[in-house]
Amino acid sequence: MEKLKPRMLLVAKEIKKAIFHSRPIILRHHADADGITSAIAIERAILPLITDIGGTDAEYYFYKRAPSKAPFYELADVTRDISFALEDSSRHGQKMPLVILVDNGSTEEDVPSMRQARVYGIDMLVIDHHHPDEIVDQYLIGHVNPAHVGGDFGVTSGMLCTEIARMINPKVSDTIKHLPAVSAVGDRSEAPEAARYISLVSDHYTLEELKEMALALDYEQFWLKFSSGKGLIDDILDLGDNAIHNKLIFLLCEQANTMIKEQLEICLFNVKSQKLANDAIMNVIDVENYAQKFTFPPPGKTSGEVHDILVKKSPGRAIVTIGYGPDFAVIRSKGILMNIPRIVRELREEMKGAGVSGGGHLVVGSIKFVEGMRTEVLAKLAEKIASTKVEY
Amino acid sequence: MEKLKPRMLLVAKEIKKAIFHSRPIILRHHADADGITSAIAIERAILPLITDIGGTDAEYYFYKRAPSKAPFYELADVTRDISFALEDSSRHGQKMPLVILVDNGSTEEDVPSMRQARVYGIDMLVIDHHHPDEIVDQYLIGHVNPAHVGGDFGVTSGMLCTEIARMINPKVSDTIKHLPAVSAVGDRSEAPEAARYISLVSDHYTLEELKEMALALDYEQFWLKFSSGKGLIDDILDLGDNAIHNKLIFLLCEQANTMIKEQLEICLFNVKSQKLANDAIMNVIDVENYAQKFTFPPPGKTSGEVHDILVKKSPGRAIVTIGYGPDFAVIRSKGILMNIPRIVRELREEMKGAGVSGGGHLVVGSIKFVEGMRTEVLAKLAEKIASTKVEY
Amino acid sequence: MEKLKPRMLLVAKEIKKAIFHSRPIILRHHADADGITSAIAIERAILPLITDIGGTDAEYYFYKRAPSKAPFYELADVTRDISFALEDSSRHGQKMPLVILVDNGSTEEDVPSMRQARVYGIDMLVIDHHHPDEIVDQYLIGHVNPAHVGGDFGVTSGMLCTEIARMINPKVSDTIKHLPAVSAVGDRSEAPEAARYISLVSDHYTLEELKEMALALDYEQFWLKFSSGKGLIDDILDLGDNAIHNKLIFLLCEQANTMIKEQLEICLFNVKSQKLANDAIMNVIDVENYAQKFTFPPPGKTSGEVHDILVKKSPGRAIVTIGYGPDFAVIRSKGILMNIPRIVRELREEMKGAGVSGGGHLVVGSIKFVEGMRTEVLAKLAEKIASTKVEY
Repeated sequence: MEKLKPRMLLVAKEIKKAIFHSRPIILRHHADADGITSAIAIERAILPLITDIGGTDAEYYFYKRAPSKAPFYELADVTRDISFALEDSSRHGQKMPLVILVDNGSTEEDVPSMRQARVYGIDMLVIDHHHPDEIVDQYLIGHVNPAHVGGDFGVTSGMLCTEIARMINPKVSDTIKHLPAVSAVGDRSEAPEAARYISLVSDHYTLEELKEMALALDYEQFWLKFSSGKGLIDDILDLGDNAIHNKLIFLLCEQANTMIKEQLEICLFNVKSQKLANDAIMNVIDVENYAQKFTFPPPGKTSGEVHDILVKKSPGRAIVTIGYGPDFAVIRSKGILMNIPRIVRELREEMKGAGVSGGGHLVVGSIKFVEGMRTEVLAKLAEKIASTKVEY
Repeated sequence: MEKLKPRMLLVAKEIKKAIFHSRPIILRHHADADGITSAIAIERAILPLITDIGGTDAEYYFYKRAPSKAPFYELADVTRDISFALEDSSRHGQKMPLVILVDNGSTEEDVPSMRQARVYGIDMLVIDHHHPDEIVDQYLIGHVNPAHVGGDFGVTSGMLCTEIARMINPKVSDTIKHLPAVSAVGDRSEAPEAARYISLVSDHYTLEELKEMALALDYEQFWLKFSSGKGLIDDILDLGDNAIHNKLIFLLCEQANTMIKEQLEICLFNVKSQKLANDAIMNVIDVENYAQKFTFPPPGKTSGEVHDILVKKSPGRAIVTIGYGPDFAVIRSKGILMNIPRIVRELREEMKGAGVSGGGHLVVGSIKFVEGMRTEVLAKLAEKIASTKVEY
Repeated sequence: MEKLKPRMLLVAKEIKKAIFHSRPIILRHHADADGITSAIAIERAILPLITDIGGTDAEYYFYKRAPSKAPFYELADVTRDISFALEDSSRHGQKMPLVILVDNGSTEEDVPSMRQARVYGIDMLVIDHHHPDEIVDQYLIGHVNPAHVGGDFGVTSGMLCTEIARMINPKVSDTIKHLPAVSAVGDRSEAPEAARYISLVSDHYTLEELKEMALALDYEQFWLKFSSGKGLIDDILDLGDNAIHNKLIFLLCEQANTMIKEQLEICLFNVKSQKLANDAIMNVIDVENYAQKFTFPPPGKTSGEVHDILVKKSPGRAIVTIGYGPDFAVIRSKGILMNIPRIVRELREEMKGAGVSGGGHLVVGSIKFVEGMRTEVLAKLAEKIASTKVEY
């Protein structure tokens, strides 16, 4: 992380500059535990500065935090951001905003929106740990990503943002020092940094407590949909009244776990498992027809929970779990040398008219396709998995 | 209803106390005719007091009326309510609100939200006539429900709320005295109280006119979605200009009845009827595939209208009507000793992985399940109905 | 168009009168290129007058532009409009608004909403070129439609609104003179007026540039959903900074064309074509199962693009293209004497319980039906097309 310092300092400087020039800030983040902790770290650092410069109500006029529905900067998002910025500019004489994308923004999928923002001279910063595509850099005035210095995905955005927050406003260091640890457990980071951040706050929070905060964030964000839920999120992250924090975490985790348990009872009963040619076990679950919909946990998390349980049941085996709906599939894997982005590329080329897209990380990801080709895409996907090398 | 008086006085006192202490009030209600009349009765009583205490704009800052999408206090609702309350508190120094749930709030399904509200010290009152679960009481500072004193479901929430409104602000008694009658016909109450309230206003409104108001409320709320539609609702309930009331009621009922007629033409053509072993007639209609969607009347009301017509066609017969969609079924029945909550419990236990939930009243209710198990659930449901005792 | 002048002057006068009396104006328009240019022409003319009368912020209090989701004045729209008007009236003492419907409002489908508006004494004006139903006139204080004087559908709403805008405020004539040309290419008008308006601005915009503006409007409105996107729309129509206009058009068209190309690759691969008894070619594409959903281009535009390509492939042949989803079908045709409104009427009468509705123009339109009858409706539709006379 030392190697990232110059880039982090640059980003910190740009954020401070925006505040001092009363440039509005739009902070967009991935709607999961890592994305939320990332954004909150920055928020905690900048709100006092914004208020210093612009007065007590400035945080409502010069700052907006917004979780993104998609795991990238969507066209619908940038359209809203530009629209509001143009109205604020013509009505209130505001400057065009600085957009900060955290735990989001490093990939090719962000480019269409970034190009629209650039037409309007909107400056953008990205702090992310998803594997970056070089093409995004031309649209950014700053980009922090561990991959730029050979770093690991396990260095989460929450860690990066917390360090940058400290550079922006050292006074908040103490307040936010547990956020990297929450982000680490939220993203299941196995990087050495994760262990260090976790031990850094072990006097205050056990590992279990950190996991509870991460789960509570996921659960609460589900009900918040795409609102920021400022006060509630602050309380989940123990940034307000500690007694409320304790009661809230206990309650939210109890509710989340009950709902996960109910969902699993339905799903596990309907999982189809088979042994593939490469000796891996492939589990398939139809999350459209055999899971409760429009409730917590949503399809992606449901598939993940099913996977975790099935992995525990067969230790030492290579396991792939696929949760599919009418036009998508979520993939989790363990012990097998998956390269999901490559599989997606191949399916896209081999299957004309199937509209395959998607990606993600090497071993965890998702695929979209047109409904009419679901059976064919899933069959081809299974074939490709069956010919992938297992690790054990 | 006399026996409920002490509880009603307590609730009235708590509401007045909140107003006098400038505590904001959030009034959440079921989005049907009974729920709306309940809420409007309270609204009429408290708005003048809120304005007295807080000035002309106070009703916009210290009061919000919001219909609930679900027939209970949903997690998405409480999340919004807490979020806004926390923002109003931190930005405008407001107190945490008093939440009043009317024609809603008496059952176990409300508990998860109530627990979240309680974490933030939000006081809650419930005025409801759905069969109450004792568990809710620990979260409430007041709860009025006829079942507590052995009363009947036919004592509607609209009746209870109107009486409480009179206790809060006697000056409005005359203005709102027809609301209980509208709620009674809306909920098809056959309780003696219904007849009394209807005759109480018979100088002003015929039974037909009361029914028209109830239908107009249902129809208008459908288009309002989950807005409160204050002015429109006031005019439907004849609380404003009487000439507008008359024109509006005539128009809305004409439009609603035309749409119901069109929907029925489609549905009735596609109803499948069969005689069960117990001699009851079971009518089944697929409201996903054989009804117009996303328009008035919605699936629940559509099923009810189909049922009413089929009941008329076979007087003196036990009749069950089931309207089903991909993951739900709505049940209406007549002349058969149904116990829907018990059927739901049994299905839930007997059918692993089907995700059965739901409930409602003894003879009217709904069931949810996962899409993949629809055929099995409906078959089992038919079996259970066939072995239920008929009344005639 | 000369013959329409008296009606246009009347409408212009009514709009000016509303402004001078500080009556709020709600401008609702079809959400396509013709509808947007229509609305922007009027907007440009009236905003300076509204500001003159009411001060700098008046445009936010006395004016609202809102694209309509449906191609008519929907009940949900009028409900919102009435609700807000009643609140503005009771809270801010505002008058009830004048509603102006452009590129919308001439047909029977608008009547239910107009009747609701009339209950509240809301005056309405319509400027439209869709085939008018006489019944609407009783609800309007002014109605401009070329069909009233034997004119052609090819005289677009954008042309009419621009002329009316010039009557309202002659100073804007120069600014908006390209809008009729954009609307003409957007609606593919082949009327002589189209050629005249296009040549009128040929010094400034090539035909290609006009088409790009129309495409950019469609694309941007898709992402705006049902926001007005004022500043963005202004820039697309070159009403602001010309450098931004150029960059924005280039970018939006590049993105729109890329997405159309991707969609077509999927769709064309899945089109089923057959020769009918009347020698016409019927192309059928399942846009639910073989097209990307919830993205640009939406089903209607997708079907149109498929049709255009297939027409080019078989010059001189009669061609009908049907894009269908679970409960709808979009129809495009060329070289065949289709009368879609009549076909819809016949299907509605012949197929009990199928819930057929819809319409549109003679050769371009859409049909709705209940999902369970899709196969039957499409088969019957194909039969009717096969017995329609081809033109070549």
